[in-house]
Amino acid sequence: MSKHIFNFSAGPAMMPPEVLEQAAAELSDVRGSGMSVMEISHRSDLFGDILAEAESGIRRLMNLPSNYRVLFLQGGATLQFSMVPMNLLAPVDTADYIVTGYWGKKAAKCAVAFGDVKTVYSSEDTGFTTVPEQGEIRVSPNAAYLHYTSNETIDGVEFPYDLDAGLVPVVCDMSSDVLSRSIDIEKYGLIYAGAQKNLGPSGLVLVVIREDLLDRSPRALPDLLTYKVLADNDSMANTPNTWAIYLLGLVCRWLEAKGGPAGIEQVNAEKARVLYEAIDKSDGFYAGRAERNARSRMNVTFALPNAELDAKFVEEAEANGMSGLKGHRAVGGIRASIYNAFPLAGVEHLVDLMSDFARRNG
Amino acid sequence: MSKHIFNFSAGPAMMPPEVLEQAAAELSDVRGSGMSVMEISHRSDLFGDILAEAESGIRRLMNLPSNYRVLFLQGGATLQFSMVPMNLLAPVDTADYIVTGYWGKKAAKCAVAFGDVKTVYSSEDTGFTTVPEQGEIRVSPNAAYLHYTSNETIDGVEFPYDLDAGLVPVVCDMSSDVLSRSIDIEKYGLIYAGAQKNLGPSGLVLVVIREDLLDRSPRALPDLLTYKVLADNDSMANTPNTWAIYLLGLVCRWLEAKGGPAGIEQVNAEKARVLYEAIDKSDGFYAGRAERNARSRMNVTFALPNAELDAKFVEEAEANGMSGLKGHRAVGGIRASIYNAFPLAGVEHLVDLMSDFARRNG
Repeated sequence: MSKHIFNFSAGPAMMPPEVLEQAAAELSDVRGSGMSVMEISHRSDLFGDILAEAESGIRRLMNLPSNYRVLFLQGGATLQFSMVPMNLLAPVDTADYIVTGYWGKKAAKCAVAFGDVKTVYSSEDTGFTTVPEQGEIRVSPNAAYLHYTSNETIDGVEFPYDLDAGLVPVVCDMSSDVLSRSIDIEKYGLIYAGAQKNLGPSGLVLVVIREDLLDRSPRALPDLLTYKVLADNDSMANTPNTWAIYLLGLVCRWLEAKGGPAGIEQVNAEKARVLYEAIDKSDGFYAGRAERNARSRMNVTFALPNAELDAKFVEEAEANGMSGLKGHRAVGGIRASIYNAFPLAGVEHLVDLMSDFARRNG
Repeated sequence: MSKHIFNFSAGPAMMPPEVLEQAAAELSDVRGSGMSVMEISHRSDLFGDILAEAESGIRRLMNLPSNYRVLFLQGGATLQFSMVPMNLLAPVDTADYIVTGYWGKKAAKCAVAFGDVKTVYSSEDTGFTTVPEQGEIRVSPNAAYLHYTSNETIDGVEFPYDLDAGLVPVVCDMSSDVLSRSIDIEKYGLIYAGAQKNLGPSGLVLVVIREDLLDRSPRALPDLLTYKVLADNDSMANTPNTWAIYLLGLVCRWLEAKGGPAGIEQVNAEKARVLYEAIDKSDGFYAGRAERNARSRMNVTFALPNAELDAKFVEEAEANGMSGLKGHRAVGGIRASIYNAFPLAGVEHLVDLMSDFARRNG
């Protein structure tokens, strides 16, 4: 009997137990082939089926119109920080960036090498604790695109709405809240998401791109860095991460059984409500990091009265079967990452400790 | 009871059954953590141990001196086709390429965008059936590097020696024969190898680079495409493919138990001997593709008297529990990929069919 852990890791993060069980059960023999999914050719009919199912899972769950392409790539969201401007930003053009946290800032910095980057909103001066209202954003009329990060994992702030930039294509790093809620897909030109939070294991990044953006590339690039080539080859311009694509397909199936993004959104909202309520009712013992209008439902960040108590809390949580709660070194405090696969029972377990800990140390 | 398959796939390819069994057994609970290796932070102490063990496995098996760095990256060998010239070839400089097959040709083509590329040897005119002798290569005296592909998976030709380029750094795509035999590591400046043949699953590429090559980059590049940055961050400039690194570590341990490259080399030589002997003794029914001095011990390529018989042979092999024998579409015929994890018993099974099939169809 293995010990039971509530895993609050920010990513790589908890995966659905049912998915892990199935993956373990058929690890050496996928679909009666007598082989592991890791051992079969990416050009085989069997892997072709697995890839097609992963793609159709994404298409259904994101409600993708036919003019959006689905790519399964390598290099994570970090490589997308560069691939987006490489492919969409000409040296003479401008791209708008909204910076609401650590990752959005990094994305903007990576784009500078490729064209004119304009930060049209930044909450850095106030410590990345909020997001703008829709009306606050002044999009540059001729921007090649507008980039934002829908959820900032380190800071714990999330956009509660789909940003609208009119005719300017919206590019969104959705790594940490993809498929956690319903979105209006037609508001987006390009969405990318590292898999290791809501989609599967690390080593895979999902890119959803509107077809008209495939032909914009303003410079010659290696094939593997060119969206058009990757799309023309259906993610098989080289050998893809077959294992991760297989698992992403299983995660999609699991999510469909939970009612898809709309269904899981209710669960996620409830998990977040319970946790933020514990913060709000603690008489300030637990200080939520994000402003209320920008509170992330994926990464709940808060701090105790001092760093010593933060550390003591993390230690007690570990001793009580809760791992991964230490805040990112950039901001300190506590971070509870509660992605799709994380159960309400784990949040309740955490809230119990918070209440008990505050009584003993308050 | 799952059916037994001898999997001759060229890659992704067969993995050691013992490795798959261990991976399945601890898929949901690695090392008593209560979590899957896919669920733990890449910055956790536990994953730090796993990464360190994978690296030390490679260091021992390749007998790496301390001035060589080990990188675990994404994007496969294909992205290395571009990263090598991006990092090592200035626009005004020349890189030498030896082209002995499909992949070497592709690597040379990818380099053209970054500097002067000189093909110092090509066997394309004679159908990629041989490799040069050491003495045949005239290295450009001021070449930034000399690139070659030690084993060509599609054509089935392999260098039976470590190429020496004197003071010019040798860059070698060793994707399909890495760790299959002893090498003299000091002959190489940079070795890269997609994992999905001899090291583990797809989605991971091993790069071994001599430290003096880290500082050569002649151009500004995104961090994730810069060897120096990747080395400075110990493969953690972004979230690596944690699952594949874990498996590579298990494969290294398995290989050490087999006596390392020197031990497995004897097994590989015997597997290849048995198979080539069956070809040579078939009175021409099976025609080996490669010249004898260049025969690959990893990918044995041959053809039957016509394409119809090729197809019939593949079909009968499938019916007899042997998969993945169809040759690459670029060359046709039959390809038996017999990497480290492939057992001699599978080769003997194939040879039995070859003998029987020739009798019935010869």
